Amino acid sequence: MKAAVMTQLKAPLEIKDMPDPKPGPADAVVRVEACGICRSDWHFWQGDWTWLGIQAQLPRIMGHEFGGVVEAVGDQVRNFRPGDRVTVPFHLACGRCNYCYSGRSNLCGAGTLGFTTDGGYGRLALVPNADMNLIRLPEGVDFLTAAALGCRFMTAYHAVADRAHVRPGEWVAVFGVGGVGLSAVQIASALGARVIAVDISDAKLERARQEGAVAVVNASQGSPFMQVRQLTDGGADVGIDALGSLATAQSSILSLRRGGRHVQVGLTSQQEQGMVPVPVDAMVVQEIDFLTSLGCPVTSYPGLLSLVASGKLDPRRLVTQTIPVEQVNDVLNAMTEFGTVGFNIIDRW
Amino acid sequence: MKAAVMTQLKAPLEIKDMPDPKPGPADAVVRVEACGICRSDWHFWQGDWTWLGIQAQLPRIMGHEFGGVVEAVGDQVRNFRPGDRVTVPFHLACGRCNYCYSGRSNLCGAGTLGFTTDGGYGRLALVPNADMNLIRLPEGVDFLTAAALGCRFMTAYHAVADRAHVRPGEWVAVFGVGGVGLSAVQIASALGARVIAVDISDAKLERARQEGAVAVVNASQGSPFMQVRQLTDGGADVGIDALGSLATAQSSILSLRRGGRHVQVGLTSQQEQGMVPVPVDAMVVQEIDFLTSLGCPVTSYPGLLSLVASGKLDPRRLVTQTIPVEQVNDVLNAMTEFGTVGFNIIDRW
Amino acid sequence: MKAAVMTQLKAPLEIKDMPDPKPGPADAVVRVEACGICRSDWHFWQGDWTWLGIQAQLPRIMGHEFGGVVEAVGDQVRNFRPGDRVTVPFHLACGRCNYCYSGRSNLCGAGTLGFTTDGGYGRLALVPNADMNLIRLPEGVDFLTAAALGCRFMTAYHAVADRAHVRPGEWVAVFGVGGVGLSAVQIASALGARVIAVDISDAKLERARQEGAVAVVNASQGSPFMQVRQLTDGGADVGIDALGSLATAQSSILSLRRGGRHVQVGLTSQQEQGMVPVPVDAMVVQEIDFLTSLGCPVTSYPGLLSLVASGKLDPRRLVTQTIPVEQVNDVLNAMTEFGTVGFNIIDRW
Amino acid sequence: MKAAVMTQLKAPLEIKDMPDPKPGPADAVVRVEACGICRSDWHFWQGDWTWLGIQAQLPRIMGHEFGGVVEAVGDQVRNFRPGDRVTVPFHLACGRCNYCYSGRSNLCGAGTLGFTTDGGYGRLALVPNADMNLIRLPEGVDFLTAAALGCRFMTAYHAVADRAHVRPGEWVAVFGVGGVGLSAVQIASALGARVIAVDISDAKLERARQEGAVAVVNASQGSPFMQVRQLTDGGADVGIDALGSLATAQSSILSLRRGGRHVQVGLTSQQEQGMVPVPVDAMVVQEIDFLTSLGCPVTSYPGLLSLVASGKLDPRRLVTQTIPVEQVNDVLNAMTEFGTVGFNIIDRW
Repeated sequence: MKAAVMTQLKAPLEIKDMPDPKPGPADAVVRVEACGICRSDWHFWQGDWTWLGIQAQLPRIMGHEFGGVVEAVGDQVRNFRPGDRVTVPFHLACGRCNYCYSGRSNLCGAGTLGFTTDGGYGRLALVPNADMNLIRLPEGVDFLTAAALGCRFMTAYHAVADRAHVRPGEWVAVFGVGGVGLSAVQIASALGARVIAVDISDAKLERARQEGAVAVVNASQGSPFMQVRQLTDGGADVGIDALGSLATAQSSILSLRRGGRHVQVGLTSQQEQGMVPVPVDAMVVQEIDFLTSLGCPVTSYPGLLSLVASGKLDPRRLVTQTIPVEQVNDVLNAMTEFGTVGFNIIDRW
Repeated sequence: MKAAVMTQLKAPLEIKDMPDPKPGPADAVVRVEACGICRSDWHFWQGDWTWLGIQAQLPRIMGHEFGGVVEAVGDQVRNFRPGDRVTVPFHLACGRCNYCYSGRSNLCGAGTLGFTTDGGYGRLALVPNADMNLIRLPEGVDFLTAAALGCRFMTAYHAVADRAHVRPGEWVAVFGVGGVGLSAVQIASALGARVIAVDISDAKLERARQEGAVAVVNASQGSPFMQVRQLTDGGADVGIDALGSLATAQSSILSLRRGGRHVQVGLTSQQEQGMVPVPVDAMVVQEIDFLTSLGCPVTSYPGLLSLVASGKLDPRRLVTQTIPVEQVNDVLNAMTEFGTVGFNIIDRW
Repeated sequence: MKAAVMTQLKAPLEIKDMPDPKPGPADAVVRVEACGICRSDWHFWQGDWTWLGIQAQLPRIMGHEFGGVVEAVGDQVRNFRPGDRVTVPFHLACGRCNYCYSGRSNLCGAGTLGFTTDGGYGRLALVPNADMNLIRLPEGVDFLTAAALGCRFMTAYHAVADRAHVRPGEWVAVFGVGGVGLSAVQIASALGARVIAVDISDAKLERARQEGAVAVVNASQGSPFMQVRQLTDGGADVGIDALGSLATAQSSILSLRRGGRHVQVGLTSQQEQGMVPVPVDAMVVQEIDFLTSLGCPVTSYPGLLSLVASGKLDPRRLVTQTIPVEQVNDVLNAMTEFGTVGFNIIDRW
Repeated sequence: MKAAVMTQLKAPLEIKDMPDPKPGPADAVVRVEACGICRSDWHFWQGDWTWLGIQAQLPRIMGHEFGGVVEAVGDQVRNFRPGDRVTVPFHLACGRCNYCYSGRSNLCGAGTLGFTTDGGYGRLALVPNADMNLIRLPEGVDFLTAAALGCRFMTAYHAVADRAHVRPGEWVAVFGVGGVGLSAVQIASALGARVIAVDISDAKLERARQEGAVAVVNASQGSPFMQVRQLTDGGADVGIDALGSLATAQSSILSLRRGGRHVQVGLTSQQEQGMVPVPVDAMVVQEIDFLTSLGCPVTSYPGLLSLVASGKLDPRRLVTQTIPVEQVNDVLNAMTEFGTVGFNIIDRW
């Protein structure tokens, strides 16, 4: 099969022929039809994530955001068969631990496609424990949409729907409206919240309005949290740090009303060892919670996919270009310069 | 009536005769039978809490932990009448805001007995909005026990039962086993958790064992969080910082397993403006939440009191001495030297 | 003030001049701008509800579905002042019981406007305990919409959002798509569910499709629950009996998959004493719950109103005619013949 | 291996030598040390449960309540190894369906040990999908206790803790205090509830007092639900029908206060097709829920076992006799005459 292969950190991926993967008894092989190029791929390629214990074994075929068709299954796989249209989660599930059994498979620790095992930059991808790690695509959700779902869109969904548990009528302030943030704006709006987008880019804020934000705050003009407090007549119910920085995390917390919930989605790797000073006493006297969100468990996909199938959510709106696999290095290089916008998807091999 | 009155910050309270309070239409007057002397009284007396917007209007009669008998009620009060045995919450409820209506009266902001209005260091205390702010004592809960309930015990109850939502079988690590911490140990044990107490005092740890801790960790001997992780085979489900410091907050977070919950109860006033560096990235990749807990809403008292009435909880065990009102300054002065242990209660006027 | 007054059961309401109500200390008087005529008014007028302990004290001004402007407030009212645009709940809240404090004011038992006290068929309506029983209308929600909210629409909202707790992607089968049922279809669809409408009228089913149903089942053609089971590949997650009958309740239960939730909204007064045979053993072995829903607590209105203000919900679509107060008897008489469709609103006095 | 084998419905089990079971790749074989004889075994032996689709394939070795030691595991089993002390759930989990992934493995439908596959009346029992269906016994929980856990005790635990979600201070009325009911009394008391036991046998009621009931009601003397309403000053928060009959189900519902929860645990097979007339209208106007409970998912065992290990729960108190396997028919015959009391356990082969 044809694949884009990382043979060395920071070096261009090599487009070459690799052996077709063969499924073990519980595995499946998926013919990839569309695969997103994620900023986390770029980080991995740069070697940024060793502190998380994620180290590249080379050669590696990256790619964790993909949709495709089941090509073959092992003889123990019961829920899927060749021809099924599927996508995959960011965090693989072992299917035999308490996290998997209780709806928190994102915490299972069984690895991630494209990082700890080969992923969707190749035409064929092996998915372990297929009964749990394949997710059936409903009619009306095409492969490009499936690729656009992960991992930014589904990460935003888990944060908004499961962790913040956003309810109709609540004020939700989203700090940083890049890929995850824009997704969060769209999702929280669809769930009936009143969303305020906060960023330093007027262009991104304008985009956030199109995704459903009822108000926007340019954080470079005056205190962003004071503006949110004014717009919401006392503070937001939920604040989401979709970027990950000292400024966005603190602003989000300070924008909340008593009893509010902050949700940290973005990693703040720019801080030394990720320590962020948090206004703990102010939080205690207002009973404000600092929640966190990581990826999306497999059990949350049916709800997400249903909203997509019905048109209430549209991750495909966030796709800005599709490319043949040969151009993957162009996108990775553009990311180095922060020159990409929205989602970039490989859809030809 | 006789009362201990604060006429000046840091000066000895004056024991003198004050006018009897008269209830307005929605108020009650309670004849106080027992009133705790709380470290928060000491802080208030020292003028420590102006940053929270709590400033003493002098003269002031402190005292927010008390039990007594209803002496008189205003003509709009329906739920109580003279002779009823009652206690009071730390945070007064206005009874007409969304916090009050949704079970979060501790966030209402209507003030606190003994700080924003006169409290239980006097023989008679006026309780505003009595239908909501009086709490009926069940048979078998005497006034000394009622005084011992607030505010450390009920604060611990809200933290453990409502905010951490501790479930049977969970590992709960309590950091700092002073008044709030010991209460948390007793409560979490009663709810079926396996509790580990962490402190630097062997005497306090021994006391924690008596309150139900199944294991103890002396934090001055090796890394406390590593010890908790070993005892729990991978990390606690819940960590409670009952003290409030950089060390206890961080240790609690680092002691948790993936998906764990930290609950901040203690204020960290020793930190500048209460900012505490928190390992945000490590929390996100493990989906660990940093929850906070403030006092106890009135709606949580029936459960708490029922556990006390049935003997499953016994706050009175934490009472170390009872005194006549004349000795209140002795206790406050002892607090300056950290020379008090357990709960000290005024029970004679 | 001008009002339509019930002076005798089943006799035409009299349109006449009545004394203006005067607010007590905690009350407000509202100038009614639009008031719905509800089938429950018709039942009350017929004397049907004595078994519920609701007996008419005559003369009585009915009307519990209204929007208007605050005209005057008592001197203890803090949250509202003259000129505020408001609506009211079906179930009045006393504001001083545990139901009121814990978000279940619909169970408080303090009475209902238009039944236990005079309501919105008069130009001016007195609302007791105004701080809790007035609900502020957001910008963009006009009086006609406010009248259309209650009580069918808000009843459906509480059933779908609070009691069934419908989540995105769930299959929801609504049995009976009259006023409450159509509202439930619209609401469950807006919250991301896949809704199946079940009725015996093709016209009503067509209307349900317009409100968001993705499939419809004519219950007069074959077993309705078998059809729902087929459409959902094994059973619905949630079944709602919006009508209230032996047939609809049982069909709803039997349409569910294992672990499903039935919500009973409609009263089944045609059954003797309301006893309905329920397939208890089949429910136990599938862990199917039979939930119930009554009106809507005041704490759920902000979420509902926000969805309306943003256009995600539109109760006004269900309004079929507006009339001057003089024509109220025409509507009540039409109800006797089941000749009304949708919501009928008085908007002129 | 030695086993008690059912070769014919209603005929005495044969004690004989059977082939040792051999584990498949995902299975384990457990050496049974103690196995309960359950009334559901008696029903199965009588052929009562064919309406549930549970039909005996003969010969069959019954027994679903057991503890023992892992003897052998298949090569895919990761969580257990020979020598581990374990027990088993009533409902087997397939480990690859949404029920299994979301904490509801009791609804998975993968079968039950002793009914759809051979169980613990034999010295060796094969447990399929062992990683999920074996439950590790903590230190201090012996095999006799493990056998006593299932299925009555764990069924009561799931009903009280998970489905009723009993909270401290709530009034819980348990109707029928046989095996499940007595267990429910003990568990609800341990969780801080105030429990009222209802039965027609004074001996059983006395026993219920020993398990923690604070009040008892003899249902043969006056209306049981009126007595509960009086004892609770308006109605219980939770009613549990642990027996399963028209009388107990209705009494439980009618004993509740507004907003209360009924939980049906017992099957009512005496009713035709299990239909039970339920006072639906009275439930709706009080928003009373009719919940159901089936067995206990594997994810609830850690909490249950922890409460047992700490001594807060003691299922062993309910064991009345232990027998060698040869006497199993004596117990089954005694059940025909309703002549057994408490739990009867095989502990010798």
